[in-house]
Amino acid sequence: MTLWGGRFSGKLDPAAWVLNTSLPFDQRLARQDVAGSLAWAAALGHAGVLTEDEVGSICDGLRAIAGEFEAGSFAFAELDEDIHSAVERRLGELIGPLAGKLHTGRSRNDQVATDFRLWVMQALPALDAAIAGLQAAFLARAESDRDVLMPGYTHLQRAQPVLLSHWWLSHFWPLQRDRERLADLRKRLAILPLGSAALAGTAFPVDRESLAKELGFDSASPNSLDAVSDRDFAAEFLFSASLTGLHLSKLAEAMVLFTSAEFGFFELSDAFSTGSSLMPQKKNPDMFELARGKAGTLIGLLTGLLATLKGLPSTYDKDLQEDKLPIFGAYDSLMALLPVLAGAVSTLSLRPERMRAAIDPAMLATDLADYLVGKGLPFREAHAVAGKAVRLAADKGLGLDKLGPGEWHTLSELIAPDVAMVFDPQKSVERRSASGGTAPAAVQKQIEQAKAAHNVEFYR
Amino acid sequence: MTLWGGRFSGKLDPAAWVLNTSLPFDQRLARQDVAGSLAWAAALGHAGVLTEDEVGSICDGLRAIAGEFEAGSFAFAELDEDIHSAVERRLGELIGPLAGKLHTGRSRNDQVATDFRLWVMQALPALDAAIAGLQAAFLARAESDRDVLMPGYTHLQRAQPVLLSHWWLSHFWPLQRDRERLADLRKRLAILPLGSAALAGTAFPVDRESLAKELGFDSASPNSLDAVSDRDFAAEFLFSASLTGLHLSKLAEAMVLFTSAEFGFFELSDAFSTGSSLMPQKKNPDMFELARGKAGTLIGLLTGLLATLKGLPSTYDKDLQEDKLPIFGAYDSLMALLPVLAGAVSTLSLRPERMRAAIDPAMLATDLADYLVGKGLPFREAHAVAGKAVRLAADKGLGLDKLGPGEWHTLSELIAPDVAMVFDPQKSVERRSASGGTAPAAVQKQIEQAKAAHNVEFYR
Amino acid sequence: MTLWGGRFSGKLDPAAWVLNTSLPFDQRLARQDVAGSLAWAAALGHAGVLTEDEVGSICDGLRAIAGEFEAGSFAFAELDEDIHSAVERRLGELIGPLAGKLHTGRSRNDQVATDFRLWVMQALPALDAAIAGLQAAFLARAESDRDVLMPGYTHLQRAQPVLLSHWWLSHFWPLQRDRERLADLRKRLAILPLGSAALAGTAFPVDRESLAKELGFDSASPNSLDAVSDRDFAAEFLFSASLTGLHLSKLAEAMVLFTSAEFGFFELSDAFSTGSSLMPQKKNPDMFELARGKAGTLIGLLTGLLATLKGLPSTYDKDLQEDKLPIFGAYDSLMALLPVLAGAVSTLSLRPERMRAAIDPAMLATDLADYLVGKGLPFREAHAVAGKAVRLAADKGLGLDKLGPGEWHTLSELIAPDVAMVFDPQKSVERRSASGGTAPAAVQKQIEQAKAAHNVEFYR
Amino acid sequence: MTLWGGRFSGKLDPAAWVLNTSLPFDQRLARQDVAGSLAWAAALGHAGVLTEDEVGSICDGLRAIAGEFEAGSFAFAELDEDIHSAVERRLGELIGPLAGKLHTGRSRNDQVATDFRLWVMQALPALDAAIAGLQAAFLARAESDRDVLMPGYTHLQRAQPVLLSHWWLSHFWPLQRDRERLADLRKRLAILPLGSAALAGTAFPVDRESLAKELGFDSASPNSLDAVSDRDFAAEFLFSASLTGLHLSKLAEAMVLFTSAEFGFFELSDAFSTGSSLMPQKKNPDMFELARGKAGTLIGLLTGLLATLKGLPSTYDKDLQEDKLPIFGAYDSLMALLPVLAGAVSTLSLRPERMRAAIDPAMLATDLADYLVGKGLPFREAHAVAGKAVRLAADKGLGLDKLGPGEWHTLSELIAPDVAMVFDPQKSVERRSASGGTAPAAVQKQIEQAKAAHNVEFYR
Repeated sequence: MTLWGGRFSGKLDPAAWVLNTSLPFDQRLARQDVAGSLAWAAALGHAGVLTEDEVGSICDGLRAIAGEFEAGSFAFAELDEDIHSAVERRLGELIGPLAGKLHTGRSRNDQVATDFRLWVMQALPALDAAIAGLQAAFLARAESDRDVLMPGYTHLQRAQPVLLSHWWLSHFWPLQRDRERLADLRKRLAILPLGSAALAGTAFPVDRESLAKELGFDSASPNSLDAVSDRDFAAEFLFSASLTGLHLSKLAEAMVLFTSAEFGFFELSDAFSTGSSLMPQKKNPDMFELARGKAGTLIGLLTGLLATLKGLPSTYDKDLQEDKLPIFGAYDSLMALLPVLAGAVSTLSLRPERMRAAIDPAMLATDLADYLVGKGLPFREAHAVAGKAVRLAADKGLGLDKLGPGEWHTLSELIAPDVAMVFDPQKSVERRSASGGTAPAAVQKQIEQAKAAHNVEFYR
Repeated sequence: MTLWGGRFSGKLDPAAWVLNTSLPFDQRLARQDVAGSLAWAAALGHAGVLTEDEVGSICDGLRAIAGEFEAGSFAFAELDEDIHSAVERRLGELIGPLAGKLHTGRSRNDQVATDFRLWVMQALPALDAAIAGLQAAFLARAESDRDVLMPGYTHLQRAQPVLLSHWWLSHFWPLQRDRERLADLRKRLAILPLGSAALAGTAFPVDRESLAKELGFDSASPNSLDAVSDRDFAAEFLFSASLTGLHLSKLAEAMVLFTSAEFGFFELSDAFSTGSSLMPQKKNPDMFELARGKAGTLIGLLTGLLATLKGLPSTYDKDLQEDKLPIFGAYDSLMALLPVLAGAVSTLSLRPERMRAAIDPAMLATDLADYLVGKGLPFREAHAVAGKAVRLAADKGLGLDKLGPGEWHTLSELIAPDVAMVFDPQKSVERRSASGGTAPAAVQKQIEQAKAAHNVEFYR
Repeated sequence: MTLWGGRFSGKLDPAAWVLNTSLPFDQRLARQDVAGSLAWAAALGHAGVLTEDEVGSICDGLRAIAGEFEAGSFAFAELDEDIHSAVERRLGELIGPLAGKLHTGRSRNDQVATDFRLWVMQALPALDAAIAGLQAAFLARAESDRDVLMPGYTHLQRAQPVLLSHWWLSHFWPLQRDRERLADLRKRLAILPLGSAALAGTAFPVDRESLAKELGFDSASPNSLDAVSDRDFAAEFLFSASLTGLHLSKLAEAMVLFTSAEFGFFELSDAFSTGSSLMPQKKNPDMFELARGKAGTLIGLLTGLLATLKGLPSTYDKDLQEDKLPIFGAYDSLMALLPVLAGAVSTLSLRPERMRAAIDPAMLATDLADYLVGKGLPFREAHAVAGKAVRLAADKGLGLDKLGPGEWHTLSELIAPDVAMVFDPQKSVERRSASGGTAPAAVQKQIEQAKAAHNVEFYR
Repeated sequence: MTLWGGRFSGKLDPAAWVLNTSLPFDQRLARQDVAGSLAWAAALGHAGVLTEDEVGSICDGLRAIAGEFEAGSFAFAELDEDIHSAVERRLGELIGPLAGKLHTGRSRNDQVATDFRLWVMQALPALDAAIAGLQAAFLARAESDRDVLMPGYTHLQRAQPVLLSHWWLSHFWPLQRDRERLADLRKRLAILPLGSAALAGTAFPVDRESLAKELGFDSASPNSLDAVSDRDFAAEFLFSASLTGLHLSKLAEAMVLFTSAEFGFFELSDAFSTGSSLMPQKKNPDMFELARGKAGTLIGLLTGLLATLKGLPSTYDKDLQEDKLPIFGAYDSLMALLPVLAGAVSTLSLRPERMRAAIDPAMLATDLADYLVGKGLPFREAHAVAGKAVRLAADKGLGLDKLGPGEWHTLSELIAPDVAMVFDPQKSVERRSASGGTAPAAVQKQIEQAKAAHNVEFYR
């Protein structure tokens, strides 16, 4: 059934129908569409547009339809153009011509904007919980892997020793930012378009603020022209999803590296890795590779919607129909990825001895420079001395900690036998005790901070 | 069925399975997968790896499977991980353990790359034909709308009169470039990966060049490491699809404008327009708006794949699994759009009188300047005089062609009564007779050029 | 001067130097770099790492350098690799080897992250003010153009009459969302990385919370590994800039249309339009076309940074050097566009008679349907009747308001002579009096809301 | 100087001027602009529009201007709006009012399109040569590193041994595709827009085909409306640049890995690596990280232009002014990167013993399966047996080659003492002798193929 046609003498071309219909994807808004219609019928009742009986019958019909959707028994008809048409068509079958009163004073323009916002509003807590689930996995590892030292990297070169706990937490905080970003989005999302009609506002005396509260929105949109075309929230959702994707891709890249034979810091559980159809020995980190790959796809979903929105002229343009698939796709990707990554992280086996072995003494060169600073040398000179020490040790094929007193002396007269202490990685870590640093005490404090942040309830 | 597992003691986590499986989308490669396996079995036979009888049995089984796919009777099993696994599993059911010999010397890495290339190779002629179909609609209009004058625009400001035929053809040529671009892509696409195995090349003496010819490829890939990871062809396909999308979006934008009440140059057929659920008078150019919107989505598909490919380290990484959905999506979008737009263009009603009325005399100001050039004035000065004439006419509230002899004289002594001829738009158009210009004779020649280009057969 | 090299025996290849240096663009961070160093020197003093005298000398030197930057007299040296190196090099020239103590306990990794965040923190209020400036132009127009009726559009088809004030305000609110989004970003931006050193945290007892306050940050980063690599804020800034770009592109598209000859609703001031080198009569809306074009460029800047960040493995990777140019570019684009668009909007001439004439009676078809609803007909049937009326009027070549009593009667017995009132657009507008609607009273209330929103001070 | 203004009474707002001017970037087209004008003047002469003397004077003036640009002595004036205006202004200074005849019959629309195409046409051979330079570095390494075995990876897991030569060549072929793609682009690029005037074609009898040949184009554009707005070539250039960026990013990712301490396969020359301002021991692969990062930026440049082009309505719109910076930026990035990467590749030190040591016996598991295939076992069963062998060896803490006869027997009765041969990686490599495989003979053949491809001259 189409909700229009009185003005038309010809029929839509069949291929045009297929191109035009949104039912294949907007049926995912069924629950929201019915909820919006229930509230709208009630609002029309309060406004005196419908009688109490009419409201009652319409709402009974709508609730029956909701039941059919829950039960999976709702039957779409060949000519249902979109979810709105399908629901109104079915309502007509259930309650007769009275169904035709439901659309009074509204348009599909404000209706779909309302449905879509409701859907995203309901997606946010679910996505927040999934992100928090992965955070919990990081937190648990940060607590259990507390005493493990690992090499920290910059430029993928061994840089300085850090605590593994600290490293796990470095993946916790980006996700916390994601959760905050989603919560910020909610303020801009929970603005009700319904009552904006096609573009000019409804001509019936509906109390839109009450309607907003009824549907769980914070307030009604202040401008009808803006309300029917505003898809900022969809773009903002996709941006937030893209950043989450990037955070997962960073974790993924590290996990792919750290489970390689060359690094060998972690081993994946069989439950979260796969094999090869050709090479029997392979154990592949597919879950993480998929996370990394989907990060690219998420960027594309965002870009696509932004490009679609660019340069649109008026209020509602049909181009906006392209808004739903990317949001559904981004949500589904993250909801599929997050629990799997949490599972993979939780079930990792550690190889602390591999990590410890990878901390070569040259990673303490900064500590050597700091040692010289402690002896009064300006840092810039201390850095140069330490650099020369690294080169000297490399030229001699020695570990940096294996230079002898004579060699130290030629490098700087300030270097005394107590330089040996410099080369204990545990001590190195402990020296980084300022807030946010990798010292055990600082990390312990960080875990408390993280737990507090993790417990924030953004939705109630 | 998974094609691996001997090395594994645990089972894949169910959520990980769902994330990992590609069957929901790669089953679209079923026909190509079977074709590739038929050729591979034959090649193993030629190489002496399989006996003639073994090849015969395997090929009989594969042909039976192909039949099941054609008939829609192929039953996927719960544990089919991807299309390759499904086919091999089914082959085993049909012919027993001999099925296990088919995968000798190949890997899913070279197999999926082959399937995917085959799919795109088969998509190209279909897409080419759909683009040519829209071109044909433009050509037909260019021939039938030959005598119609319309205003040409730059900056969406009325600029100079042009022939409507010329305007239709301006949408023909970009599509010709698209077809050429796709044909260029074919050279890079028709390179066979099969025989590259997982990454190092097959260890069996397969004649890859024969295999390539057998499957319709031009040649075998020169480097196995590159062959299993090269997805340039997919990116190039998406880029070409994006440009086609842009060309459709340009047409769409113009059609949205020209079917508006304000322009009113065209009226859409009922078969290719839709109405409003609220406003009974509306006749909306949804098909063109969808074309414009999908142009944005296509950009996103391209961007997403490029971002996914960026920074991949090794030969085959699982990230590459994200390659198929964007190609399928782009192809489906264009194949849905192109015939509908061709239909909409073909069934448009013209309003030539609206176009003619929109050619206001100021659009001949360039001709006025050219007239002065003809009288010997340098163009730059002629341009200034014509500009002043426009301002004078506007100040007086007159059409530019309505200035009197005295006014002309104050503007330039070079302007004589023959200036009147300047203001005939038909004449203006006729003056632009250099090749590529809008003069009727030039457009006639252009139509011949376009027909010749249109008839090029890129695929045989 | 490079800040490294002790370990190296060879020199950097000259082409590699050019590729590697960031000075051409990061010199824009000069002021922030000096500010960060001033605070760092003081913090080292508080921590007992530097003496009071040393702090004094270093800060005197840094202030002298700041003066040189203000005065434009700072001379970069050929071997300055980046802004940090340049400042430290110059400091050494001014105060001698003591300069080498400034870098104690920090790294360029935390230093550049700090500089960059400071820069964006200082950019936010400026950008907010520029956006608010354009909002002010909309508000002023909304107040001055209060009684003007114009056609409202959906699908670029004439839909329903609206107030021009209402239309101007529809461009106000998206910018308000942009300002809120930027303000939300500030929370995630004002987190101090300094003290994170290269990756593991500083080894000196610096009070990072005090340091944060000193530099205007809200707090110190909780995790050093995250702090040196987190560029979420840059991506979020680019996203916000992209959305602002989209909002400007929407305005631009409408302005291009409405200043066309066909719409003719507005005329641009000479001060904000340009002419043609060939066609003397042209008056082109270049400023708005540039806004629309730059919206595309902004999307690219966002996409580029997201793609760059995807899949980075460790803490600081040199890829991050690509982060600055897009932020500078996006900021500069918006700061160039916003005041020009505000000027163009403020200086527009209106043609209210053209707008009024464009409100054809068929735009009141919804009101006709509402009229029938008022007579008790379900909306769906009323919509069909109104649709038939539109078709009947069109077939007869009449305005919808020109149907006679007999014709009305055949359409519906419910239509009485009072139907005439339906066709007054002023009345139509007045009927849309629910909040957010286009009725004068609702718009008046909306103006008050907008003023209150506009006056919110996000930064103090 | 602006080339318009006769119609205008007011002046352009100063901020609007700054926004509008393109001179800061289009001055890079100076040489092409003068070349185009020289040819245009000659064409006007042939057409009888200018006298021989006029053509002579104009061309003398233009050549003088070209000399000024070469010498760097051309002085831009405050009011030069773009490069075209600057040249015409200067021409007037040099030859007087006759300069005003040069713009006869053309527009900046066809002029800038011509300049821009010329610029890209001249950029192609330079870019081709730079790509070929990096290819040459790969070829040289492929020849010199011929006997080196290394582990090949899929999913970054050790997969099978390959020849290092083969690996180098895997980076050669993608660049060859890039060169072919650029050469294909040239066909669509070398189409002359000049003579299209603003949009409708020139009104003077210019022989555009001769003009095309004169300027090095293949032919004249067939449709003036298309010619002034077609920027497909710019998008295609950016796409090709993006793919080259991806190919460099893949190399870069591998180099970052292989120069890490964990892999340790290569060591960078000091001339192509950098150090740390904090950590004296660091040697960072910045050049490759920049390549990887810039790959993201290139994707953004492409995306931005595509988004800018989307939905443009008419022929020339000012939005197109956004087309140049991305092309210049992409070209400059690649021209900066390619020689540096070639230098870095050429100067690498190898550590063949590290590569050899990384080939653990489990990487021969596929060979074990192939061995069983040779004994008649279907591959699928052979794969399972080999998988079990890997697990058994791992459980026992043995290399796969260290299982004893008893253990082999329990795995499969088909395994005989000759299984030992399976575990020689050199033999494994030699077995992959089909074309495109990693066997020395196949690689030798591949080198010949690569040399032949490399020598193709795409431009003469």
